[in-house]
Amino acid sequence: MYEDRIRQPELRQKIMTAEEAARLFRDGMSVGMSGFTKAGDCKALPAALAERARQEDLKLTLITGASLGNDSDGLMAQAGLLARRMPFQADASLRKKINDGEVMFIDQHLSETVEQLRGHNLAPIDIAVIEAVAITEDGGIVPSTSVGNSASFVEQAAQVIIELNLRMPLSLEGLHDIYVPAARPGRTPIPMLNVDDRIGGAAIRVDPARIAAIVVTDSADSPSAILPPDDETQAIAGHVIEFLSGEVKAGRLTPALLPLQAGIGTIANAVLHGLLDSPFAGLTMYSEVLQDSAFELLDSGQLDFASASSITLSEARHETFLQEVERYRSRLVLRPQEISNHPEVLRRLGIIAINTALEFDIYGNVNSTHVGGTHMMNGIGGSGDFARNAHLSIFVSKSVAKAGAISSVVPMVPHVDHTEHDVDVVATEWGLADLRGLAPRERAELIIERCAHPHYREELRHYFRQACKRGGQTPHMLELAFSWHERFRRARSMLA
Amino acid sequence: MYEDRIRQPELRQKIMTAEEAARLFRDGMSVGMSGFTKAGDCKALPAALAERARQEDLKLTLITGASLGNDSDGLMAQAGLLARRMPFQADASLRKKINDGEVMFIDQHLSETVEQLRGHNLAPIDIAVIEAVAITEDGGIVPSTSVGNSASFVEQAAQVIIELNLRMPLSLEGLHDIYVPAARPGRTPIPMLNVDDRIGGAAIRVDPARIAAIVVTDSADSPSAILPPDDETQAIAGHVIEFLSGEVKAGRLTPALLPLQAGIGTIANAVLHGLLDSPFAGLTMYSEVLQDSAFELLDSGQLDFASASSITLSEARHETFLQEVERYRSRLVLRPQEISNHPEVLRRLGIIAINTALEFDIYGNVNSTHVGGTHMMNGIGGSGDFARNAHLSIFVSKSVAKAGAISSVVPMVPHVDHTEHDVDVVATEWGLADLRGLAPRERAELIIERCAHPHYREELRHYFRQACKRGGQTPHMLELAFSWHERFRRARSMLA
Ligand SMILES: CC(C)(COP(=O)(O)OP(=O)(O)OC[C@H]1O[C@@H](n2cnc3c(N)ncnc32)[C@H](O)[C@@H]1OP(=O)(O)O)[C@@H](O)C(=O)NCCC(=O)NCCS
Ligand SMILES: CC(C)(COP(=O)(O)OP(=O)(O)OC[C@H]1O[C@@H](n2cnc3c(N)ncnc32)[C@H](O)[C@@H]1OP(=O)(O)O)[C@@H](O)C(=O)NCCC(=O)NCCS
Repeated sequence: MYEDRIRQPELRQKIMTAEEAARLFRDGMSVGMSGFTKAGDCKALPAALAERARQEDLKLTLITGASLGNDSDGLMAQAGLLARRMPFQADASLRKKINDGEVMFIDQHLSETVEQLRGHNLAPIDIAVIEAVAITEDGGIVPSTSVGNSASFVEQAAQVIIELNLRMPLSLEGLHDIYVPAARPGRTPIPMLNVDDRIGGAAIRVDPARIAAIVVTDSADSPSAILPPDDETQAIAGHVIEFLSGEVKAGRLTPALLPLQAGIGTIANAVLHGLLDSPFAGLTMYSEVLQDSAFELLDSGQLDFASASSITLSEARHETFLQEVERYRSRLVLRPQEISNHPEVLRRLGIIAINTALEFDIYGNVNSTHVGGTHMMNGIGGSGDFARNAHLSIFVSKSVAKAGAISSVVPMVPHVDHTEHDVDVVATEWGLADLRGLAPRERAELIIERCAHPHYREELRHYFRQACKRGGQTPHMLELAFSWHERFRRARSMLA
Repeated sequence: MYEDRIRQPELRQKIMTAEEAARLFRDGMSVGMSGFTKAGDCKALPAALAERARQEDLKLTLITGASLGNDSDGLMAQAGLLARRMPFQADASLRKKINDGEVMFIDQHLSETVEQLRGHNLAPIDIAVIEAVAITEDGGIVPSTSVGNSASFVEQAAQVIIELNLRMPLSLEGLHDIYVPAARPGRTPIPMLNVDDRIGGAAIRVDPARIAAIVVTDSADSPSAILPPDDETQAIAGHVIEFLSGEVKAGRLTPALLPLQAGIGTIANAVLHGLLDSPFAGLTMYSEVLQDSAFELLDSGQLDFASASSITLSEARHETFLQEVERYRSRLVLRPQEISNHPEVLRRLGIIAINTALEFDIYGNVNSTHVGGTHMMNGIGGSGDFARNAHLSIFVSKSVAKAGAISSVVPMVPHVDHTEHDVDVVATEWGLADLRGLAPRERAELIIERCAHPHYREELRHYFRQACKRGGQTPHMLELAFSWHERFRRARSMLA
């Protein structure tokens, strides 16, 4: 059985049920699991571990690539399994436990988690649980639809559990490029010069003796939950494309642009979707997630090559992709998230980064994570890796949320994920502000006039004018800086 | 004349006075000047340009390495010469003009300025003005006590003016290592594997035809203004050294640690000075500035090698250094600030970064630039380059300023330069908080108990407890978050 998927005969003896494998875990362990924005996550162990936690005292530190699918994060959180969770999540029940202070959530730049582990700034991984398509003759784990942090988890963990997912076609083999930087000191440059370079092996190396269990599963990734483009996201896309066209006209970019990164979520997907009607061609992507829009662009022929750490698609596209991997093989690569997001590589390639803000302020500081400044939405994800090191760092957002009761352009953001230094351009459905080379006071005028919703514009102008009377590089009236957020907390609307 | 310093005879015809050279500038030009934290700045052109601006309409965009000495920034600001200034300054009169909104100051990560120029995100440099020790036979400019952005300014500028400073000894030749990354796409890895690698040439390449003027000067760099260690800075140093010793004991670091970076200012200098009494040996530095303390450690033999972009010393040390360059030659290198601060190199080497905060909040977000959240002090400098990419990012501060009227540990910083993600450790004279792997609520307890001044501790505890009742990953009461800053603004004291 499973000859094609478990190519070392001895390993087949390690097949067991998820319940049996779950018994390998002990209270207080640190666990590294595959899974990145719902792709390539483990399908069986999360439920089996949650079940154990319901029966007995079992609390774990769970480290993943990014968010998990299949309600796994919620299931594990509700069972009380998760003492600590890093570096990203996007689950409603886990989010509640985090904001209630029951789960300690460590929000991290996605390129940094394994660096922190490798440098012993975090406790070591006891068990790695990795979804795989196959285990090769020479002890290689072939990941499925994401790579995430799996290669480093396997390298560092005392024990490895494989979830062999029969639903994932063997054709995925060869899509991955596994390169792991060495410990320091003594590290050498990452030899990546182009988005389509292959610099590592096709599988994750593992000493078979460390494989403690193989659990066979058969289920699909959860579909992505992005909404279709609407008038506003189309307007945002329009502004971004007009801006990039201007850069091409001015000779600062060629029609192939530079490698694109697009963040998670509906708006970033819509911007990329908008490129279908753009004059750009010969495009490349160097991103962390590929959403539906990336495949639309691969299909249209505008996108030559896409590099990422995971593929997160709608249900229909996911099915088609798994059936037609061959069609994309030569134009696709999946890498460890440390490499897809690595400052060294991003700075070298010169990325155009498009990420989504919950809100930004009149000076261009961005909050992507904390609703109301306090409550975690998802996490910073890779947005910091890309924004800091990009050639152009673009943040997009609708100008209002909650049917206009919240302005996403505010006097001061109550939580900063990206400082003004790392934000070159902001855009809403109303327009785009090109902030390059501008001082804070100049940024404010542009942001207010181009990006804020007209309902909120006059009050922003007033705030800025009054603040300027007090002087400063970045004028503010601290006693009023969060008055809009306070208004919303009390009256459920930021409108005066 | 100047045979030893101007080694192409034709070039000697280009010698002129500073006043003559100043006539090459036209209103609205973008000018790149050498100078990094007072070292290697131009001594004559700033005054000559200021003089012209007093007589006629002349406004420039001035881009430097970092801050200038000799009151040049103040002189130029007061003369109305500076329309725009980037990426850093540390001058009282310029600071005032910036905070009054008269000079547009663009505060930048020091590794990024030339990247922004190279990528055409900023207007091109019209004239570069570079202090030099000599011009070589084959058209190389030998910089003096800093490299800063000079190499890229020369590469990009239409015209180059050299300030040949006779006070700077020829023995400085050979100390510099000039490497400039190529434009994108097509850039290759920076081949730096160790702090003492030399990867470029000893001089800045220039086509002599682009040299428009040579101005001969004869004056020293301004001395650094750091204060000697006091009880508090010594206590801070003690906590940092104890922490690092703990890392060595735990086997996470060797006694050679990892390459050290220490920020500008009195406190960072004191921490490094404290290493003189530490058990560490075989140390290296990969920093942007070398202050007195670095030379003390070179002299004591504890520091094997120091790499930086500038050397900024007290008056006595400056003199000795210039007389005894030979003594240090094999253990010192000066690089472009893009390379001393480059994310690629920093991440590869794994730096221990020690920078100074004006204030930090209970969650570990750091303000290094904006007094009261609004008024620029100096600028972010290289602190972001190092903090983001370090193996260990340490921020130090005295727990109070202005004789206790200001707490440097606050509920929320009113300006964020470094987010909690980029801050591993904070320390004041009271103690050190090791924040690695901790969630915000855990960070708060440690920061309050270990770092805050006892006079402010109870109120911080109260704020945190009350905020937690409202929930959230990062609990806050926005209406009170800046109440301490408001109190100070109104009553000149944060004390209740
Ligand atoms: C910011 C982020 C949450 C936006 O996601 P999105 O799907 O594009 O955006 P939406 O407009 O659907 O907003 C999501 C939710 O935030 C709410 N929201 C938007 N702006 C808000 C604001 N200023 N204040 C409060 N809530 C806001 C929306 O109402 C919506 O709420 P709902 O889920 O209750 O309907 C998402 O991009 C994210 O998590 N980013 C951080 C990580 C990241 O950038 N990774 C990039 C590299 S992959
Ligand atoms: C933050 C910084 C100003 C501290 O400098 P320093 O010389 O070590 O520190 P000092 O304690 O002497 O403080 C400098 C001034 O800030 C004031 N200050 C300190 N904390 C303050 C606070 N929380 N609020 C207001 N003012 C404060 C001090 O009173 C002092 O004022 P004075 O000049 O009127 O006496 C300096 O390190 C800096 O500019 N950093 C940003 C750039 C950087 O980090 N570069 C690092 C790579 S080189």
